[in-house]
Amino acid sequence: GWVRSVRSQKEVLFLHINDGSSLENLQVVADPNLGTRDLTFGSAVEVQGKLVKSPHKMQNMELKAETIRVVGPCDIQSFPLKVKERHPLEYVRQFPHLRCRNNTLGSLLRVRSEATAAIHSFFKENGYMHIHTPIITSNDCEGAGELFKIETSNEAKESAEKDHFFDVPAFLTVSGQLHLEVMAGAFTHVFAFGPTFRAEKSQSRRHLAEFYMVEAEMSFTESLQDITQVMEDLLKTATSTVLSKCPRDVELFHKYIAPEQKLSQRGYLFIYFRIPYREAVEILNQAAETFTFKPEWGCDLQTEHEKYLVKHCGEVPLFVINYPYDLKPFYMRDNEDGPQHTVAAVDLLVPGIGELCGGSLREERLHLIESRLQRYLDLRKFGSVPHGGFGMGFERYLQYLLGVDNIKDVIPFPRFSHSCLL
Amino acid sequence: GWVRSVRSQKEVLFLHINDGSSLENLQVVADPNLGTRDLTFGSAVEVQGKLVKSPHKMQNMELKAETIRVVGPCDIQSFPLKVKERHPLEYVRQFPHLRCRNNTLGSLLRVRSEATAAIHSFFKENGYMHIHTPIITSNDCEGAGELFKIETSNEAKESAEKDHFFDVPAFLTVSGQLHLEVMAGAFTHVFAFGPTFRAEKSQSRRHLAEFYMVEAEMSFTESLQDITQVMEDLLKTATSTVLSKCPRDVELFHKYIAPEQKLSQRGYLFIYFRIPYREAVEILNQAAETFTFKPEWGCDLQTEHEKYLVKHCGEVPLFVINYPYDLKPFYMRDNEDGPQHTVAAVDLLVPGIGELCGGSLREERLHLIESRLQRYLDLRKFGSVPHGGFGMGFERYLQYLLGVDNIKDVIPFPRFSHSCLL
Repeated sequence: GWVRSVRSQKEVLFLHINDGSSLENLQVVADPNLGTRDLTFGSAVEVQGKLVKSPHKMQNMELKAETIRVVGPCDIQSFPLKVKERHPLEYVRQFPHLRCRNNTLGSLLRVRSEATAAIHSFFKENGYMHIHTPIITSNDCEGAGELFKIETSNEAKESAEKDHFFDVPAFLTVSGQLHLEVMAGAFTHVFAFGPTFRAEKSQSRRHLAEFYMVEAEMSFTESLQDITQVMEDLLKTATSTVLSKCPRDVELFHKYIAPEQKLSQRGYLFIYFRIPYREAVEILNQAAETFTFKPEWGCDLQTEHEKYLVKHCGEVPLFVINYPYDLKPFYMRDNEDGPQHTVAAVDLLVPGIGELCGGSLREERLHLIESRLQRYLDLRKFGSVPHGGFGMGFERYLQYLLGVDNIKDVIPFPRFSHSCLL
Repeated sequence: GWVRSVRSQKEVLFLHINDGSSLENLQVVADPNLGTRDLTFGSAVEVQGKLVKSPHKMQNMELKAETIRVVGPCDIQSFPLKVKERHPLEYVRQFPHLRCRNNTLGSLLRVRSEATAAIHSFFKENGYMHIHTPIITSNDCEGAGELFKIETSNEAKESAEKDHFFDVPAFLTVSGQLHLEVMAGAFTHVFAFGPTFRAEKSQSRRHLAEFYMVEAEMSFTESLQDITQVMEDLLKTATSTVLSKCPRDVELFHKYIAPEQKLSQRGYLFIYFRIPYREAVEILNQAAETFTFKPEWGCDLQTEHEKYLVKHCGEVPLFVINYPYDLKPFYMRDNEDGPQHTVAAVDLLVPGIGELCGGSLREERLHLIESRLQRYLDLRKFGSVPHGGFGMGFERYLQYLLGVDNIKDVIPFPRFSHSCLL
């Protein structure tokens, strides 16, 4: 492992070493003669000895060293991480190749890995088939924000457009939804968990150019309640798994990064509210607060509105369902409930983050979406079924779970406007 | 599910329906009066009734229908898949949005999903941390083939290079190795399983522009044997899991697509050979065959050489280790065994495919790789450890496992030169 501290006394040498498998260090007890000049904070060591019960209250075991070998020394003068210092997240972000040696990032990445596994398991155990939806696509799913375009290195220099590698313009995907709908038309329950991309220039703490989406699609579903139930079960399962597998890692965040987070986590495990969009607008209109954007039927909920609604419900996750027809994309299922009629869409709002998931029933009725994309129509022509699905921003989930303010700190190698380190 | 066949007799109506969860259909037995004009091959139905023990030998259960509702009719005239027809893979490839309704692709995608889960489980159970290595990168890892370049949609039209979204030129990743090495320097054992990209114009049955790589990196490893053992264990575990979870799906391939495959699979489960590169060259020199490329020390093994070596060893997986120093990239560990000296590199060759995995010990000694990339050096300065890793082409693994000739048929949405459908 790597040395986290060296304490040399007259008769005994204490080392704390860590191999990244947990937040806790292993204490090594050695004869001072086993120490060398290279045995410093940050160095990599191989220690052989006996693992024995520790007399100290704080740890179960310690290692009585017989040999210590420094396999990789560490130049502590130039090493940007300093012994026993709590570096701010902004500081370690400058060192994309070394910040994983920091305790906070270590815990974060262990939680991320555990949450990833929990999400895969949840879907597998519930009979969902995993699909690798494509990264490169010739579609522009619902025109979501700015796209990244793909060229071969040579192409970019040419002026002629005719020489595309794929014969057509190609982009980085913004969503796997269409491809999952294809697969839900054969396998009933499918999910994807992969990278998606937005070329937004905004430098906000909420946006990355490359981020991960969990997306699911289910056939033979005619009720929005089915969709929200899967979202709720997914979040409860993933959260309780992470809390039970990485208690110390989560604790670090709740102790040092976001002390107020522990309370709101309860909602994740137990309480989920559901209100229609119509009711949400009424609540906002009756609010004592004055909003920058006047809440009224037919308008999108703004961040200030979302925050108020979540607070109004007691800082727990809140499903807002049945949005106005004109607010949502063409493929969402018409509730045919006019005159102020709605579609079967849902957004999940959570404290501190705002929108975490979005989903809908999809319009399966051919006559209601005619004059649209040919392939989308084909899917409705050959055994169309009522279906729906949702997407969840994985980084936003981690932000909420751990109370991390900046999205750049919950992904191993953040990519955003003006920054693509390593 | 979706109707696979309708057989109407005077007194009874038989349906076979399938929901994509397995290759087997469910037989529905109904009163002919429950049939309608819409109840055709390809239509989506909801059937209610009693699941009873079947009197037929070929199936355990059948459904005695009480109601049949066609939720989505199918225009069988224009539906490109025809009832009870074995469509060639080349034919269904034209319909990226419908080919998953075909039996062969159905089985393939179930195997792919099961193999994906088995690979994740293997690493998790062996203490490896999962890392999302970045898709967009400013590096060009070892200059592997042609890169895809990323621009924002507007950028491509501008001539000035200074307006890059990331301030620097950005590319689609060709390997997550460097990023995994970063993480292995903190977490000891790490793995990634994500998309990688090559802009090769070749239209070969062995190449895709977008494909999946399984990559692992392990610290405190000083022997190439450790690396090959992990590769072997991974392949054995994934293969035996797939064989036990999807026996019918695998059988379909071994029956109709690649009847000779069943035999060579045995190697995957039991026998792995290991020979040094030096010995491989000797074997080739003693061969009765004449090769287009003369085999000699210091030259790369060509496809014809790989095929001969695998055949020579009895058509089982074959590790070739310790390649000439000058053949391999700078980061591989020098064996310091001159004069014809070698690095601790390994390629795994398998029947029908050629190279399936490649790996190496990485050079951890600072003085041996000085004058290289600054960040790569940094990783060696602050607690460098002996480590190594490997990568496996996931599609090639599926090709070998199932005997699928064309790589385009083992990925849900293939992307290659001149083609980016959907």
